[in-house]
Amino acid sequence: MKNAEIIERLFALIEERRSADPANSYVAKLYAKGLAKIAQKVGEEGLETALAAVQNSKQEVVYESADLLFHMMVLWADMGLTPDDIFAELSRREGLSGLDEKNSRDQD
Amino acid sequence: MKNAEIIERLFALIEERRSADPANSYVAKLYAKGLAKIAQKVGEEGLETALAAVQNSKQEVVYESADLLFHMMVLWADMGLTPDDIFAELSRREGLSGLDEKNSRDQD
Amino acid sequence: MKNAEIIERLFALIEERRSADPANSYVAKLYAKGLAKIAQKVGEEGLETALAAVQNSKQEVVYESADLLFHMMVLWADMGLTPDDIFAELSRREGLSGLDEKNSRDQD
Amino acid sequence: MKNAEIIERLFALIEERRSADPANSYVAKLYAKGLAKIAQKVGEEGLETALAAVQNSKQEVVYESADLLFHMMVLWADMGLTPDDIFAELSRREGLSGLDEKNSRDQD
Repeated sequence: MKNAEIIERLFALIEERRSADPANSYVAKLYAKGLAKIAQKVGEEGLETALAAVQNSKQEVVYESADLLFHMMVLWADMGLTPDDIFAELSRREGLSGLDEKNSRDQD
Repeated sequence: MKNAEIIERLFALIEERRSADPANSYVAKLYAKGLAKIAQKVGEEGLETALAAVQNSKQEVVYESADLLFHMMVLWADMGLTPDDIFAELSRREGLSGLDEKNSRDQD
Repeated sequence: MKNAEIIERLFALIEERRSADPANSYVAKLYAKGLAKIAQKVGEEGLETALAAVQNSKQEVVYESADLLFHMMVLWADMGLTPDDIFAELSRREGLSGLDEKNSRDQD
Repeated sequence: MKNAEIIERLFALIEERRSADPANSYVAKLYAKGLAKIAQKVGEEGLETALAAVQNSKQEVVYESADLLFHMMVLWADMGLTPDDIFAELSRREGLSGLDEKNSRDQD
């Protein structure tokens, strides 16, 4: 399965789980806790990815990055966003003479 | 351009910038600072995504999520990982009776 | 100078700087950026303290912990809180058969 | 009880719990998990303090700040540091023409 397909299928699954029973579905349970708790999970997984990297554990970075992507998708779904919205933004920057834009943005 | 293509192209660009002059390239400058600083950026972007979400700003969540994905890719490249490694992990979990695995994992 | 005196004096200094010129004072500049940016600094310093600890650098942990305490005080001042409010909470928990309360709280 | 006394007493309590049974003591359980997990807690509490602030909840900021200070103390104890080490650093900066030092440091 290609990466794009994985994103599509996983995101579809996440959206589908919105109507699931929180007792049976981790995603439904997250939705039930609300946006602030989902946001907190994204922050925590970012922290855990960073800590795994500094400890030089490739396996943990794979694991925590997958967790982070997963919770980002739940956050996007909860806010009515889709992966397309985020990838369009990434593509837009890339087009804009690429990462130079980021460069200038970071001066503040 | 499809999402998968964006990932492939952006990741190729990031790998290509490893040999660029840090004076001209944001990515090369990040590499020059080393793994700990790249990891810190991932943690910071996770935090900023969470803060944007809690402030209910869809536009900021798009923006910070793109930043977060971008810095995750720089981290992966720096550690010799590829997007395929992370998506394989996501796919593996999805296959493994999906998110129930995550569910049980979170009990600790 | 005793630790309590350092807290009192530093917090008084931070409150005093509220009316300073943002061009001359780091604290006044932080206040001018607003609560969300001050909150972000607290999150970032927490991350940096964690990363310094995992890298086993005592000197960096001292340094980042001081940064973290400093930005927490700016946050308290900005929200109309004082160190007394936070220490009263710490004391209250300690009194409440101490950390057992924390223990039970963490089960969720 | 004065703030300084609270710090002294809480830190003494935290050090004392090092030898406690992890089954009965939250602090002993944290120590048993090791430095990386204690560091992660500090990062998480920094994130939660930031999220509480952005949501404008004074009560939650008091609560999360107390949690953050508590876990910072556990981290210090685990690394062989004391509150005095951190307050000496804060005092040193304050003396050094105060916060101007911080100001210059942040330019990078």
